[in-house]
Amino acid sequence: MRFGKVICGGIAAVALTSVAFAGGHGGADPSIGARQAVMSLYGYNLGILGAMAKGEVEYNAEVAAATAANFAALAGLDKSGMWPEGTAQGEVDGTRAAAKIWEDQEGFFKIFADQKAAADTLAATAGDGVEALQAGLGGVGRSCGACHEVYRGPRN
Amino acid sequence: MRFGKVICGGIAAVALTSVAFAGGHGGADPSIGARQAVMSLYGYNLGILGAMAKGEVEYNAEVAAATAANFAALAGLDKSGMWPEGTAQGEVDGTRAAAKIWEDQEGFFKIFADQKAAADTLAATAGDGVEALQAGLGGVGRSCGACHEVYRGPRN
Repeated sequence: MRFGKVICGGIAAVALTSVAFAGGHGGADPSIGARQAVMSLYGYNLGILGAMAKGEVEYNAEVAAATAANFAALAGLDKSGMWPEGTAQGEVDGTRAAAKIWEDQEGFFKIFADQKAAADTLAATAGDGVEALQAGLGGVGRSCGACHEVYRGPRN
Repeated sequence: MRFGKVICGGIAAVALTSVAFAGGHGGADPSIGARQAVMSLYGYNLGILGAMAKGEVEYNAEVAAATAANFAALAGLDKSGMWPEGTAQGEVDGTRAAAKIWEDQEGFFKIFADQKAAADTLAATAGDGVEALQAGLGGVGRSCGACHEVYRGPRN
């Protein structure tokens, strides 16, 4: 999938932003930048929640609920197109996507489904106090770890 | 807001991914990387839809609907924390966020609300054929352009 000319200035501008953003990958498949942007936004939202859960930042129910809702929305994104064939670590630069992803698509996407369920629980409870937030993050964190352990390759 | 130690290995791994991803900004506020990741994902999804709308890629109702649903989910993210004070172009490197954002918060966030409405229309119709997709993208594109025209600074 390539970015082509698009149908209006506004969309063109956004598409160009994306291309610029993914510039570190040269002419690589834009799905690589997209999946990394998703992981970045996972980290951003979980970082905010994690800091509250640890007491490094004062717990704020409204912020916790909104941030957890953001994470749940991201967890719910359809990611089925984001790991196309030919974009594994070793096949292209700048990715740690393990070959195992393509050997076990069912297992890989099952973790995202599990994570969405954990994210929905987190979103439903993150505003109920710091202990509820901690519990909800635990469930999400297990899905993060389950995926990284199996489907992420070593640092380059 | 800083990433601190987080409460489990899985979340720590995700947070580290995010820090690595935002590495181009050094120690900058992670909200800058987050908002740019959102814009990147806007571009990724609109790029897929735009290519179909222009006939560069064969129209596929299922892909169009799923991609538009992804865009609508991203448009619905609570972005209220992503442009904190002190992160304008000229105040920090690596951003084109115009000072106007902070001078007119109401106008700025109003565009996101308008865009969410346009995104929901797009998501509801993108699977109904290429003409419906084109029409839906037009509405979204106007919101992109409206924001970039006023709230985005010049290229560095």
